[in-house]
Amino acid sequence: MKLNCDLGESFGAWTMGLDTEVMPHIDMANIACGFHGGDPDVIADTLFLAKQHNVQIGAHPSYPDQQGFGRRSMSLSAQELTNCLHYQIAALEGMAKVQGLTLSYVKPHGALYNDMMKNDHILQTVITAIAHYPSPLKLMILATKESAKHTFAANSLGVELILEAFADRQYTDEGHLVSRHLDGSVHNKAALMAQVKQLLKDGCVTTRSGKKLNLDANSLCVHGDNADGIALIKDIKSLCNSAE
Amino acid sequence: MKLNCDLGESFGAWTMGLDTEVMPHIDMANIACGFHGGDPDVIADTLFLAKQHNVQIGAHPSYPDQQGFGRRSMSLSAQELTNCLHYQIAALEGMAKVQGLTLSYVKPHGALYNDMMKNDHILQTVITAIAHYPSPLKLMILATKESAKHTFAANSLGVELILEAFADRQYTDEGHLVSRHLDGSVHNKAALMAQVKQLLKDGCVTTRSGKKLNLDANSLCVHGDNADGIALIKDIKSLCNSAE
Amino acid sequence: MKLNCDLGESFGAWTMGLDTEVMPHIDMANIACGFHGGDPDVIADTLFLAKQHNVQIGAHPSYPDQQGFGRRSMSLSAQELTNCLHYQIAALEGMAKVQGLTLSYVKPHGALYNDMMKNDHILQTVITAIAHYPSPLKLMILATKESAKHTFAANSLGVELILEAFADRQYTDEGHLVSRHLDGSVHNKAALMAQVKQLLKDGCVTTRSGKKLNLDANSLCVHGDNADGIALIKDIKSLCNSAE
Amino acid sequence: MKLNCDLGESFGAWTMGLDTEVMPHIDMANIACGFHGGDPDVIADTLFLAKQHNVQIGAHPSYPDQQGFGRRSMSLSAQELTNCLHYQIAALEGMAKVQGLTLSYVKPHGALYNDMMKNDHILQTVITAIAHYPSPLKLMILATKESAKHTFAANSLGVELILEAFADRQYTDEGHLVSRHLDGSVHNKAALMAQVKQLLKDGCVTTRSGKKLNLDANSLCVHGDNADGIALIKDIKSLCNSAE
Repeated sequence: MKLNCDLGESFGAWTMGLDTEVMPHIDMANIACGFHGGDPDVIADTLFLAKQHNVQIGAHPSYPDQQGFGRRSMSLSAQELTNCLHYQIAALEGMAKVQGLTLSYVKPHGALYNDMMKNDHILQTVITAIAHYPSPLKLMILATKESAKHTFAANSLGVELILEAFADRQYTDEGHLVSRHLDGSVHNKAALMAQVKQLLKDGCVTTRSGKKLNLDANSLCVHGDNADGIALIKDIKSLCNSAE
Repeated sequence: MKLNCDLGESFGAWTMGLDTEVMPHIDMANIACGFHGGDPDVIADTLFLAKQHNVQIGAHPSYPDQQGFGRRSMSLSAQELTNCLHYQIAALEGMAKVQGLTLSYVKPHGALYNDMMKNDHILQTVITAIAHYPSPLKLMILATKESAKHTFAANSLGVELILEAFADRQYTDEGHLVSRHLDGSVHNKAALMAQVKQLLKDGCVTTRSGKKLNLDANSLCVHGDNADGIALIKDIKSLCNSAE
Repeated sequence: MKLNCDLGESFGAWTMGLDTEVMPHIDMANIACGFHGGDPDVIADTLFLAKQHNVQIGAHPSYPDQQGFGRRSMSLSAQELTNCLHYQIAALEGMAKVQGLTLSYVKPHGALYNDMMKNDHILQTVITAIAHYPSPLKLMILATKESAKHTFAANSLGVELILEAFADRQYTDEGHLVSRHLDGSVHNKAALMAQVKQLLKDGCVTTRSGKKLNLDANSLCVHGDNADGIALIKDIKSLCNSAE
Repeated sequence: MKLNCDLGESFGAWTMGLDTEVMPHIDMANIACGFHGGDPDVIADTLFLAKQHNVQIGAHPSYPDQQGFGRRSMSLSAQELTNCLHYQIAALEGMAKVQGLTLSYVKPHGALYNDMMKNDHILQTVITAIAHYPSPLKLMILATKESAKHTFAANSLGVELILEAFADRQYTDEGHLVSRHLDGSVHNKAALMAQVKQLLKDGCVTTRSGKKLNLDANSLCVHGDNADGIALIKDIKSLCNSAE
């Protein structure tokens, strides 16, 4: 079970996230491409950090909405979304190559990620965009009840999926994340560690309604926004290591 | 003598230049990368057009100043400029690869181009950035009296130069373009065609002061902003073809 | 019946619309505020032009989406939309005051306009934002079958409406514009002039299905994108003048 | 001696500065206008905070360079700079009025501030822009040896100056700030408090070369980036209060 984390989301003079402290403990870095966070300088620094710690690199593209941090849905046409993805992936891939690094995968950010999980035609556009991209890239999406269907759709176009689960979030019976607005949707530390253990041992989570839900996840999304987050990442990493 | 032209400088809903009419008549397209003009959609369309007409592709990166169209100098550090160039070149190169195209060269835009021709340390930063870029790219700069020095500096880092001359602009004795603010700095059609002939036949231009100036140019910069520009490009192209 | 037109939608080096030729023939200029089109220089120039021709000034605010020209819906919270409107209105109003001009009204642009006409809570947010703005400003929206309801909602908060009709667009029975994607949705010249005459004489339009629809419109939206548009504006203006 | 501080420089999802902790202790808030920091939401929140603590409000406009945080010089024409200032001042003033607040002054930010102190024609453009703005606004600039000349230039156009000194920065004999790149240019706490005392008691500072330099300052610039900064602000405020 690999740990992935969104990184490189600082912008200009503004710092976001404790990237330096997170990087040593994760396996995969989802690096912002400049449309919601990140800029050429931040990208270069983040890639350098990933290189030092031998962390796999993913592009973390977004809707073009810096002020909204890519968290607001935007109604892009399939062609607009495709070009928007290619531009961001290409910018990150080229900058990675400058440092001798290879881009491995793509994980859409924020509202684009949510829209893609809700609307099959958006997911299909994302898959197709990656299939048409000249380098072989995997696509990271949420592990849900529909993962088999998603995997089939991606594989049909030659795209491999990485299915991720969230350590800190409660799930619905369908395998979607319970809205942050609801009580109990974000786990406390004990519930989070229990969910990680369950995922590692049994490959499932217990949903909000109490059911067991199998999730075919091969990556865990973690967050390094503050010191508590870093401590949690270390604990989760230890769990994962001992489970191997 | 190859014709190059700045293209793909439209942005969103705003159109600039008659790209469709220019493309059939030129050899090299300097394509904006989204920092002064261009956006993912415009870039995709421009690359498609270049592909149809078998035109060589160059990245046309700029200072990050959309409102100012990259025409205002900005004091970037060498590191900032390097990252800013890598990001733009990478975005364009990746999008070119999506269409099966290969990026050949880089021509800086506007204020960055002027600053680079005026300040050796900025030119050096540009050369170094291109040298460190993983794909082999040439650099297009102005042919001046200092072209030998520039060529030496570039070649030392493994970068090949393309030296361009301007068909429509009057030159100083040093081989710089006479400021647009001065009378006679922009040639009328007769003077323009005469300058092209002189470049093709004798490899020189007659400067504002009346001197002959040798210019080791292997490309001519042309402009396709309006119908007159298109007509001129065709005439220049005919001249070049008949000179071969 | 007053003519209104979207103006000041150029941006930086990019020109859009024949503002200089439109301004002499219209009564109300909806001036872009810099979020989808316009920038401080364009705004200053457009205000100057409006002043010369004694044209009433409206703010034409948008979602913050320059590349998409404000034509893509964005899911802003009510608070975000309110602040986004206040910022744009304030910027335009202050720049108008610099030239001794008074801002009269607000007409939302593009996707925001459409969203507002489709979703009552967005319209309510727009009305409330204008009600809270310290200067007395009218709100221009589409005249539809629901105009009485809209007028009541606006007046309840002390905001006066300007109801506009479109000269060149076919209407549904509910008084919405027929989608541009459908045949016949954009009138040819004859149909356009007939619709204007009908609006002036009978206060109604004939819908796509052939019904008469009363529209309580006191302004007509016209477009000045090209020479044909300018000619039409002059003809429509003549019709309006002769109807008075 | 009034304390002023740059505030409202967060942007979208990115936080900068401890505005909530700074605001209770200062007299004048220089609020970013959205061109280097700040956005409509941040501006609304910052104005609300200023209102709660009864703090005077100033506009803190910048070159249009978000990624560079307004710290990179840009070569704007006088007309471009004027429009750029009017737009930002107007946006902030209007949003202040929404909350019943009155804008009092303008303090240019970053590279624009430095350029204005170095180049008389830029300062003159700033003064003229403020003079032409319809509301009566003061201009805050650095107190230097040339303050009398600056005051004369501003007053000639009806603009009143606020002259500020820096608590934490070493001065040259001309009254400019010693470059941050030089050792000792930024005072430690003891030197800082000594400089404040000297300014309050004698109206002068001791320059890097050891000379006494009279500074006709009526405001002190302080920084609230971190907990140490907040503690210093409180100490400086106490000193100022006891000096009254």
